[in-house]
Amino acid sequence: MGIIVQKFGGTSVGSIERIRNVTDRIVEEMSKGNQVVTVVSAMGKSTDELVGLAKQISATPAKRELDMLLATGEQVTISLLTMALIERGLPAVSLTGWQAGIQTESVHGNARILHIDTKRISNELAEGRIVIVAGFQGATVDNQITTLGRGGSDTTAVAIASALQAERCDIYTDVTGVYTADPRFVKGARQLPAISYDEMLELANLGAGVLHPRAVEYAKNYQIPLVVRSSMERKDGTYVLEEAIMEQNLVVRGVAFEKDTTKMTVFGMKNGLSSLSTIFTPLAKNHINVDIIIQSYTDNKENNVSFSVKSEDKQAVLNVLEEQKEMIQYDHIDWEDKLAKVSIVGSGMISNPGVAALMFDSLASQGIMIKMVSTSEIKVSAVVDESEMIKAAQILHTAFHLDEVLETVSVGK
Amino acid sequence: MGIIVQKFGGTSVGSIERIRNVTDRIVEEMSKGNQVVTVVSAMGKSTDELVGLAKQISATPAKRELDMLLATGEQVTISLLTMALIERGLPAVSLTGWQAGIQTESVHGNARILHIDTKRISNELAEGRIVIVAGFQGATVDNQITTLGRGGSDTTAVAIASALQAERCDIYTDVTGVYTADPRFVKGARQLPAISYDEMLELANLGAGVLHPRAVEYAKNYQIPLVVRSSMERKDGTYVLEEAIMEQNLVVRGVAFEKDTTKMTVFGMKNGLSSLSTIFTPLAKNHINVDIIIQSYTDNKENNVSFSVKSEDKQAVLNVLEEQKEMIQYDHIDWEDKLAKVSIVGSGMISNPGVAALMFDSLASQGIMIKMVSTSEIKVSAVVDESEMIKAAQILHTAFHLDEVLETVSVGK
Repeated sequence: MGIIVQKFGGTSVGSIERIRNVTDRIVEEMSKGNQVVTVVSAMGKSTDELVGLAKQISATPAKRELDMLLATGEQVTISLLTMALIERGLPAVSLTGWQAGIQTESVHGNARILHIDTKRISNELAEGRIVIVAGFQGATVDNQITTLGRGGSDTTAVAIASALQAERCDIYTDVTGVYTADPRFVKGARQLPAISYDEMLELANLGAGVLHPRAVEYAKNYQIPLVVRSSMERKDGTYVLEEAIMEQNLVVRGVAFEKDTTKMTVFGMKNGLSSLSTIFTPLAKNHINVDIIIQSYTDNKENNVSFSVKSEDKQAVLNVLEEQKEMIQYDHIDWEDKLAKVSIVGSGMISNPGVAALMFDSLASQGIMIKMVSTSEIKVSAVVDESEMIKAAQILHTAFHLDEVLETVSVGK
Repeated sequence: MGIIVQKFGGTSVGSIERIRNVTDRIVEEMSKGNQVVTVVSAMGKSTDELVGLAKQISATPAKRELDMLLATGEQVTISLLTMALIERGLPAVSLTGWQAGIQTESVHGNARILHIDTKRISNELAEGRIVIVAGFQGATVDNQITTLGRGGSDTTAVAIASALQAERCDIYTDVTGVYTADPRFVKGARQLPAISYDEMLELANLGAGVLHPRAVEYAKNYQIPLVVRSSMERKDGTYVLEEAIMEQNLVVRGVAFEKDTTKMTVFGMKNGLSSLSTIFTPLAKNHINVDIIIQSYTDNKENNVSFSVKSEDKQAVLNVLEEQKEMIQYDHIDWEDKLAKVSIVGSGMISNPGVAALMFDSLASQGIMIKMVSTSEIKVSAVVDESEMIKAAQILHTAFHLDEVLETVSVGK
């Protein structure tokens, strides 16, 4: 008998009917002799509705009070789900973040979990109850209510799984698992039986959007096996676990892509490399995420530097660099909009040096121009024209044989 | 500089616009140099909506979970009101019941406040903040969220006022104060400048509905002056305070009335008076409130007993007494529906023995038949036909000169 932590997102608890469906999933785990802790998000669009109320009062609502407001969303879900379980004759108890002992840092809107005091949850489990916990929220040591920001409920679930030394953390969502590429766009995309934490992290960061990177990182650090699965369909999901215990490493496990990328170039920097920190430090201070960075020298000893940002940050970049113009001493700034990033991810790359070359060849042979490139040990990203993004993803999906089933499926218990 | 506790009910915070209006009231008190603690209810019909969700899941939702659910209603209001204050540049902080130190007994749905740990509220006031507290809710010593039942926010406000030794507790509502009778029905009804706790208690219990009896009792016990006033109009309200400090005691301060009364009569009780507890103990155990009780003997030594109940409880009474038939040994039960109770209240009655007689005479002379009577030191109630209720109230209002202004208005500070 082990402890299973489940997490159901907003869509999965979006109506009374769906909340009833969740009780089925809980019963299924219990019938296998497991103890169950279920973490839930706010119902459907209710968080957006609460934010809408706050925006009627202030364009920039006080952060502490916004947390106070938003925390009610999950509290509604936990109480309704627990009522539904009790109505079925099952012993259950709901706990808010603070009741569940989820202690966070003193930051509002984006707090990190510092510690989980599992006493209350463990006592409830020991008394035979199903424990329903409000995701996305916690409290500081001073009893201030905080929220965890985007992906917060995933993080709550993984953190509880870790604190309870759970056997598994099941992330129920509106997709059936993790795919080799987004099946809405890429032909032949198929669900993976398993993926490593590191691969998942790259995919999450690349905008695949199934799991929040913070939750994956937490799972990796504490070695909690995750399963991404559907709350609607009864299908095997995708295991996310340590590479070492996976049956087979694929050279490339998946293709990710995201648009709205802008390439910015700073021309004629007089002070050479020493200017780089004068560019990127103020951008970081203004919470602008810079992705790929490329430096280049020209004959007349001027330095140019190019970097990619989200298109929505372009104006902010221009503002910051204008302010810093005297410090950086550049000539002018130019940019290229409507770009996209296409990436291949796979932990098998480390031992396969030809992967990047095959990627570039495949794209070039079909006439797709690569504007920027970046690589990590398990990822290669290429920036291309937004209009060619899907085509590029499809080319790479086929080139790396991702539409062919190569893995043997034997992970999990 | 004193502490003023304010309470705004659901209607007074029923929209974003009304929440903004509440900030005006807070600013007014602050501009007089007072420290302000404001207790709020859930917005408009939001509690009903939450109950509606719960009822979709269960006809009898688990009480602990219903408290968990309903407590979100006030939490939404406190955060929005606090945002609105901060948006106006005022320092403010919201506190849930548990954060405000409101400790209740371990009962769900109708918990009583045991104790208020004012440390948190006092600290926030000392740091110059307006403190916005969620009404209607608290927590047990085991950190379970509880709600206080009907009139809960009134009780929260009065209890906080008492714990902080506040100068005054202002109950903002959708009426401008306490009236000599309900002005929607009784011609010449006018607002009272002041009323004693005891009179208010009788009126509250008699269904005047402005203030919950529990809150009045609390205020009386701790000698907290209450003011019932309008959240919409800027008018003097009605002071509720100790009789001794009022300028003048009226013989009769007000007329109250409520319909949906049923008179039930148990005929032919074989065991005489000893049967009474066999009737009323099981009724009490089934949470049926019995109001007026009348016993009568007939010649053949059988005992009859009549009592009044709310009409909605009639069937429950019949069920309970049927179960107890062998124990009570009665002959049969009869009842009379569509009755109403009309009452006069006034602390001056004690020293005016003719009051009840004048009441009976006034009604009889206009052809209204009295079916039952009960009296206390400051109240006389008569049960009449529902169809004659308003007429009776109007007769008494005129007979006791309630439409004439007799009081001098000089209460308060």
